[in-house]
Amino acid sequence: MQEAPLNLILLFPEDFTDQEGRVRLSGRRLKHVLDVHRASLGDELCVGLANGNIGTGRVTRLDEQVLEMDVLLDHIPLPALPLTLILALPRPKVLRRVLRSVSSMGVKKIFLLNAFRVEKSYWDSPVLGPESVREQLVLGLEQSRDTILPEVRLRPLFKPFVEDELPGLIKDTLPIVAHPVASAPCPRDVKRAVTLAIGPEGGFIPYEIDKLVACGFTPVQMGERVLSVETAVPALISRLY
Amino acid sequence: MQEAPLNLILLFPEDFTDQEGRVRLSGRRLKHVLDVHRASLGDELCVGLANGNIGTGRVTRLDEQVLEMDVLLDHIPLPALPLTLILALPRPKVLRRVLRSVSSMGVKKIFLLNAFRVEKSYWDSPVLGPESVREQLVLGLEQSRDTILPEVRLRPLFKPFVEDELPGLIKDTLPIVAHPVASAPCPRDVKRAVTLAIGPEGGFIPYEIDKLVACGFTPVQMGERVLSVETAVPALISRLY
Repeated sequence: MQEAPLNLILLFPEDFTDQEGRVRLSGRRLKHVLDVHRASLGDELCVGLANGNIGTGRVTRLDEQVLEMDVLLDHIPLPALPLTLILALPRPKVLRRVLRSVSSMGVKKIFLLNAFRVEKSYWDSPVLGPESVREQLVLGLEQSRDTILPEVRLRPLFKPFVEDELPGLIKDTLPIVAHPVASAPCPRDVKRAVTLAIGPEGGFIPYEIDKLVACGFTPVQMGERVLSVETAVPALISRLY
Repeated sequence: MQEAPLNLILLFPEDFTDQEGRVRLSGRRLKHVLDVHRASLGDELCVGLANGNIGTGRVTRLDEQVLEMDVLLDHIPLPALPLTLILALPRPKVLRRVLRSVSSMGVKKIFLLNAFRVEKSYWDSPVLGPESVREQLVLGLEQSRDTILPEVRLRPLFKPFVEDELPGLIKDTLPIVAHPVASAPCPRDVKRAVTLAIGPEGGFIPYEIDKLVACGFTPVQMGERVLSVETAVPALISRLY
């Protein structure tokens, strides 16, 4: 089955073979360029350096073993969204897709939080391992032609996070929590920094909403429909920006 | 692994055992009520009749074999979105998730269209079978507590659809096509009927955009980021409504 297109090939320092911008790739990225791009010698592909500039890579060698390119990194990456996402840890397979999705949308700060309705077993999932998280973030960046890796932090304790860490995080931002029974609609096109909290399937419990409200959050809704986390996240972000 | 919650149990005429609103369920819905709701005798669950009202079902029998409820269907369902979605046929596994997502958001008219960058093999996928499509639509309705099944129509020929059928479909709607390199931003909060066309991964080709423009469509974008279909669809719908 065809994979989603890799709109930018994300490069890491260890891909470079010299100081002049020559890179050598194998594995997933080579396979993708062979199978999907079907590139030829001399073709220019969109590339970017992780946490650095974007630009082009001219193919100088391409066979079943290796892809070599001369790269020129002459553009700054797309602007990030001024959004801090606080997400109750979703089911592992949903988490993978949500990480990819928010990475592609330009979110750079993500906290995965415990909540009453988060199944305890989710915290033991291998999907939460740093390599697995990073893989999804990279796929999101490649999708949207970005290079800046988001930071993902795990917060398995709700109360100390909300009481001790959250007041500092929300400073100079609009703190809102998605809550299907809220009276206020989610604001549109806010043009400012937002801290957005999203509960688990089934929602935050009243105690959790109360704690967030006490911290300064406003509950907001997007209509009467209860959406899944993977639908609600892009819908909320797109409404805000 | 836990499934997403079934926020409404969708009922069909064949589930009813008498004229007085008694239903008998087994299979997926019984299993879900046992495993996730962990319901007991006398509990009231949210139910809805396919293409009919929503209401409550009081559990009168629940064991490993069968769930019986007395149902009262006394509320009309949530309003539909006045949106016709024309979607270039995505990869099968993406299609499943997109059908569920748009069904949960209240879209009722969906056309799956061929386009140059749609892989031919996608049209042979079992995911396009009526039972498989319906399964995803039902999951979306159960997620968002809706009952009205969307209509999904397959249009494997681009040109005759755009030339012969589309002019009638877009009447009295705002016809827009998502196109990452468009100059106009996607409008917000339009408060009117929209026909929204979304291309395949990689986008519609210029010929296809030209045909849609000739039919009356305006190309719109959501920023410089290229989003995957499954992220772009909820993001676009949430921006429009």
